[in-house]
Amino acid sequence: MDRELQLISSLAQKTGSKIVLFVMDGLGDVACDELGGSTPLEAARTPNLDRLSARSELGLLDPVLPGVTPGSGPGHTALFGYEPTEHLIGRGVLEGLGIGFVFTDRDVAARFNFASTDASGNITDRRAGRIDSASAAALCEKLEEAIPSVKGAQITVRAVKEHRGVVVFRGDGLGDRLPDTDPQRTGVPPLTPRGLDAASEVTALAAAQFVEKARALLVKEPKANTVLLRGFARYVPLPPFSEVFKLTAAALALYPMYRGLASLAGMTVLDAGVDTDAQIARLKASWRDFDFFFVHVKKTDSYGEDGDVQGKLRVVEETDAKLVPAILDLAPDVLAVTGDHSTPCSMASHSFHPVPLLVNARYVRYHGPGGFGETSCRTGSLGRLRGRHLMPLLMGYAGKLAKYGA
Amino acid sequence: MDRELQLISSLAQKTGSKIVLFVMDGLGDVACDELGGSTPLEAARTPNLDRLSARSELGLLDPVLPGVTPGSGPGHTALFGYEPTEHLIGRGVLEGLGIGFVFTDRDVAARFNFASTDASGNITDRRAGRIDSASAAALCEKLEEAIPSVKGAQITVRAVKEHRGVVVFRGDGLGDRLPDTDPQRTGVPPLTPRGLDAASEVTALAAAQFVEKARALLVKEPKANTVLLRGFARYVPLPPFSEVFKLTAAALALYPMYRGLASLAGMTVLDAGVDTDAQIARLKASWRDFDFFFVHVKKTDSYGEDGDVQGKLRVVEETDAKLVPAILDLAPDVLAVTGDHSTPCSMASHSFHPVPLLVNARYVRYHGPGGFGETSCRTGSLGRLRGRHLMPLLMGYAGKLAKYGA
Repeated sequence: MDRELQLISSLAQKTGSKIVLFVMDGLGDVACDELGGSTPLEAARTPNLDRLSARSELGLLDPVLPGVTPGSGPGHTALFGYEPTEHLIGRGVLEGLGIGFVFTDRDVAARFNFASTDASGNITDRRAGRIDSASAAALCEKLEEAIPSVKGAQITVRAVKEHRGVVVFRGDGLGDRLPDTDPQRTGVPPLTPRGLDAASEVTALAAAQFVEKARALLVKEPKANTVLLRGFARYVPLPPFSEVFKLTAAALALYPMYRGLASLAGMTVLDAGVDTDAQIARLKASWRDFDFFFVHVKKTDSYGEDGDVQGKLRVVEETDAKLVPAILDLAPDVLAVTGDHSTPCSMASHSFHPVPLLVNARYVRYHGPGGFGETSCRTGSLGRLRGRHLMPLLMGYAGKLAKYGA
Repeated sequence: MDRELQLISSLAQKTGSKIVLFVMDGLGDVACDELGGSTPLEAARTPNLDRLSARSELGLLDPVLPGVTPGSGPGHTALFGYEPTEHLIGRGVLEGLGIGFVFTDRDVAARFNFASTDASGNITDRRAGRIDSASAAALCEKLEEAIPSVKGAQITVRAVKEHRGVVVFRGDGLGDRLPDTDPQRTGVPPLTPRGLDAASEVTALAAAQFVEKARALLVKEPKANTVLLRGFARYVPLPPFSEVFKLTAAALALYPMYRGLASLAGMTVLDAGVDTDAQIARLKASWRDFDFFFVHVKKTDSYGEDGDVQGKLRVVEETDAKLVPAILDLAPDVLAVTGDHSTPCSMASHSFHPVPLLVNARYVRYHGPGGFGETSCRTGSLGRLRGRHLMPLLMGYAGKLAKYGA
């Protein structure tokens, strides 16, 4: 915890008030020509958010820093109140979280590709002809079954999608300072795992054994006859929500990665089912048991990534019609509606643009004309904040931060 | 590099896009009674900037911190993306940069005044009767010719203006922790140079020898018979633009100090000639060779310092008529228009007021009604940013920052 978080933590106090952090993934956008210069959020019919915004404070969040495009990891790390430049979640771990793997703090994860090598061991295809997901999953099962452990580490192998997977090394004192074994080109052999410090050297020995055994098992495969490892990362939990904010926090997310990010912050991950109805039902059923709820909607981001303006607009409208009133029915003391980053449809990717933010609470300073969008947020009373400052703000609105000094 | 700059540096990537940082020195102002409460920037007829601003994002920059008035050094250090509270350019070096002196990293510079002492060696006039520039220049030449070096250091003496000059000590291991030798009052002798650490003691010995030899050479001068040294400073280059931002950067400034500040950041200083036409011609001729251009206009600040509202307004109009369209003709991918600090005419000095900022790029979020001024900037979508965050923002707009985290 840096000084700011230590301060917040020292002021945090348990109260009966309830906070909902409602995240529409990739919410922010830019002016869309096909919407006459509006954004999907602005063009969408959102009567509930509009009514809410008239009694709320608006602003813009920079998840990391102006100009910096966050991945989902840093985007959520910031929303959860941590300094994203200090706590970077390694790629191997993030990939594991994305498929719902439950880590322990003895784990080092790496992503891997199935790849093809020729008779002399040189790589001929770094993606093994992009083998299909089902074949790759079968190979992963075979590897995990045949290689339960190597010297110094227990092994777990999980398929992700197509040629991609995750391998987890579980053991004591494993370091994660290992360069990728993927040489990023063909015609050369895979690199040998090596550690850049003593603890990582232990991991490197385990990784080398794993690769050797995997190659022996895959020797007769027509395409996927080796694995290339990258993104080695230790699982390092964030300072838990219960300690930092004195909150009993629950996460309601349909997608594994966001459940994983919440668990990294020590939140209780609830089974949110497979659709919005189940997510709402679970939220209502759990309302008494927690004082903080992280509720996540994924598809605003997915449509943004697809460049699908109408799709993104429709998700916003559906969310306004269903999830927003369901949350309001529960009458949280503090409700924040925002995103973890912007995903402009015109860019079809995450972007650095700041994210719209709405904060509703009893003691909001202003009552405005209403309307929640990038334009209203830019002149909102909260101004432009760093992402990590949202949590202290919500804690303040919730009466959960004691006065600092006398 | 602090953590933020390290992060930006780790994400920076070379691309074909081009950025122009266009600085109108001292651009910001405050409400002027004679302009009916507008600022010179707002009252000026600026059709080109107005049109541009309708497709741009606006905001305000705090060069250092709210309330802190920056000199030209910190103002530009911040615009160039460095933390101005970490990298302070010493006064001796800044004075040298102001007269176009080309430093090496073995240099320590000090400003000096010619001064008058009486027969017993006590100061009678700390400015030698403000002797004219020509006489002082002749004395400087005489000193440099007669004192090519002292023990441990090669000597360069340059006139600045009237009684003011710069002396540069070039040698190995020279420190710069030396108090001024100017006692700031008359009736006492000049102070003896002394170093506050071992390396600075080497400089102090050299400085003492220089002063002794200078006094011997000036003994018959009616007024300027000694020199008082102040603002000792080592030349410490900034982490270069090529490394920090992976940019091939060029500077086009008519005034030596701004060329010097650019060279401090590792930019290539182009010969910008003596007027706007030459500056524009050189910009066009060099357009292919660089991916970042720092273009500087001085006179907005000069008229501000003079308290000349109409003069400042006229410079803004001339700039809008000539330099702005010339830059737009080159179609930079990202264009920022801003200042290094405010210089309100009513204060006739630099001030702490935040500086208007316009950023034009492809993926701007909003399309507005247009108008570039202090008032439109205060509700602009960029909000109020620290000066050092401008560079990361421009890098982001230019697609030159990789995504942070997965």
